Amino acid sequence: MQGLEATYHIESTPDQIGARAEALAIEQSIEMPPSAVRQPEVLREVLAQVVSIQEAEKGYYRVVLRFAGQTTAFETAGLLNVLFGNCALQEDVELVDLNLPSELLSAFAGPRFGIVGLRQLTQVHDRPLTCTALKPQGLSPTQLAELARTFALGGIDIVKDDHGLTNQPYAPFAERVPIIQKAIAEANAQTGGHTLYAPMLTGGPKTLLERLQTAKQAGVQVVLVAPMLLGLPAFAELVQDLKMAVLAHPAFAGHRIAPPLMLGKLFRLLGADATIFPNYGGRFAYSTETCMNLAQAARVPWGHLRPTLPVPAGGMTVERVEEMVGFYGTDSMLLIGGNLLAAGDSLLERTQAFVQKVAASVGKI
Amino acid sequence: MQGLEATYHIESTPDQIGARAEALAIEQSIEMPPSAVRQPEVLREVLAQVVSIQEAEKGYYRVVLRFAGQTTAFETAGLLNVLFGNCALQEDVELVDLNLPSELLSAFAGPRFGIVGLRQLTQVHDRPLTCTALKPQGLSPTQLAELARTFALGGIDIVKDDHGLTNQPYAPFAERVPIIQKAIAEANAQTGGHTLYAPMLTGGPKTLLERLQTAKQAGVQVVLVAPMLLGLPAFAELVQDLKMAVLAHPAFAGHRIAPPLMLGKLFRLLGADATIFPNYGGRFAYSTETCMNLAQAARVPWGHLRPTLPVPAGGMTVERVEEMVGFYGTDSMLLIGGNLLAAGDSLLERTQAFVQKVAASVGKI
Repeated sequence: MQGLEATYHIESTPDQIGARAEALAIEQSIEMPPSAVRQPEVLREVLAQVVSIQEAEKGYYRVVLRFAGQTTAFETAGLLNVLFGNCALQEDVELVDLNLPSELLSAFAGPRFGIVGLRQLTQVHDRPLTCTALKPQGLSPTQLAELARTFALGGIDIVKDDHGLTNQPYAPFAERVPIIQKAIAEANAQTGGHTLYAPMLTGGPKTLLERLQTAKQAGVQVVLVAPMLLGLPAFAELVQDLKMAVLAHPAFAGHRIAPPLMLGKLFRLLGADATIFPNYGGRFAYSTETCMNLAQAARVPWGHLRPTLPVPAGGMTVERVEEMVGFYGTDSMLLIGGNLLAAGDSLLERTQAFVQKVAASVGKI
Repeated sequence: MQGLEATYHIESTPDQIGARAEALAIEQSIEMPPSAVRQPEVLREVLAQVVSIQEAEKGYYRVVLRFAGQTTAFETAGLLNVLFGNCALQEDVELVDLNLPSELLSAFAGPRFGIVGLRQLTQVHDRPLTCTALKPQGLSPTQLAELARTFALGGIDIVKDDHGLTNQPYAPFAERVPIIQKAIAEANAQTGGHTLYAPMLTGGPKTLLERLQTAKQAGVQVVLVAPMLLGLPAFAELVQDLKMAVLAHPAFAGHRIAPPLMLGKLFRLLGADATIFPNYGGRFAYSTETCMNLAQAARVPWGHLRPTLPVPAGGMTVERVEEMVGFYGTDSMLLIGGNLLAAGDSLLERTQAFVQKVAASVGKI
């Protein structure tokens, strides 16, 4: 079988990097001294190989390791263990890329809706999608539903929960979700629009199942999930039979795993239909290069995997819409939260301005 | 309600740290400009407060924030979101400690066995426990069972799977677990000992349930789980009705969350009976201070939570047993893997030497 290749960014020195790369190959495969391995076939077939070492910048090296695909057990947890299990605890190592052989790639179905499916759900085919968030924390279901109604009347495509909304006493999931979904349905009936509500779904397996039933009964078609908060194996299993589109949130994704790999490639592999990430120039320190690589990882052709919709967010403003559409192109969704809410009594007008700017920006790309 | 306090280590400058701390308080609570919040009670009750800012070392500050307990929804995912949801993506922030008010602490049951329960299972009451690992990857169930038998004959208390063993084609869970469990039971019958086998349990909820059934049917009493690989909400729910002791593995726990907090305090809060961590002086760069703080976080008195057994591991040797026992004391478990396996044909003798050294070390503490 063709091997699984992973690329690491390692802090080291010219005289030590060779040994450091070998040590990493051992750590992530057999995890014991090769000299103590009594089976020659294990050394031949299971011990990871150092494929290449290149100096990346002063004191840092790009190291490619090749693993036997079968050590991943062709499942999420096994793959993560091989890629970044123990070395997650070693601060000199960052995981920056991976290359899956076809036998391993075929074990993952990827997004079930993807960009095409999200466009069908929202009936938006020729422009970037728009998204906003219900916040702040502390509002009641009725208050959240009123916000949602205004956003829907303003023509937003997807109105999502703040990712912090789980099941707080002031806005329990079972109470909040049907009320918000109903408010949006009423606004849609009024406008002829197709705004969708994406409630935040999280919890252990049992809790998750209960909330999923609530969401289904309410008619929800898209859910917001933070894969790293939920656990990646649970996330991958969740999307299997979900029949709802999945908007991935980056909360708790703070590993030394490069964002284009984690939020772009890995979340796509495990089934995110859309992936939210911090836009450049906002409250987070992502560079334009990181953002573009992330967006591309989400939507470039990759085997049988459907493309994932990139969703830049975090401190964005209506004023930046044209710039964002120019940067990310039509196959994207712009998420603006606080900057809409800051309009106060003019929330509907600011929302409409956002939606119109996105529509108008398309001819200018 | 008394608040939830979290301590962060932030990289900043004297003139910027005040604003940086405020921005973090906003990010982790209301996540929108306070000026845009229309409900005064949200600003009063939900917006996090900066409690203190202290210079820690040049360019770094210790910042304590106080959150409203209800924003956690009294559940794992909500707690993690509040503590480290979005700021996991901000590289200038490390989460270093937390202080739970009693209303929040009482929502978590903690370890179901803890140190006392593990001592009952292993029938070891007056010395540190011993632990080893079945490896390398690539061995068949029969080969793993033979290793396990030798370790049990040598008197090891807990023989665990290598954390990389999930469900590989060369050692499927359903085939491997009963054979290894049986080999250990036979050795116990021969020696009169009480060696336990801890198989690695992982996967999405359905897979987990299937493997759990297999383990239960085989008579397994302890499982090895990597909480961060599984997802912390899934981990917390798993231990609820498990009726098996849980040995936590640190794989994939690579956040900017201080190890004593993550592997000591948080894993204990969520129910780990024992917690494996990289020992100082091994293949990982943990300091003696980090290791001691971690061990203490796992076992100091903390509300109603049972103490968790600290399990130093990673490049340890039989030669270091006395030093380790002196450092960690009796309420610990020493995990030595590769250094035993390196004995080759003398595996039984090296295992016995390890066990005897631990027993002999007690009088010397």
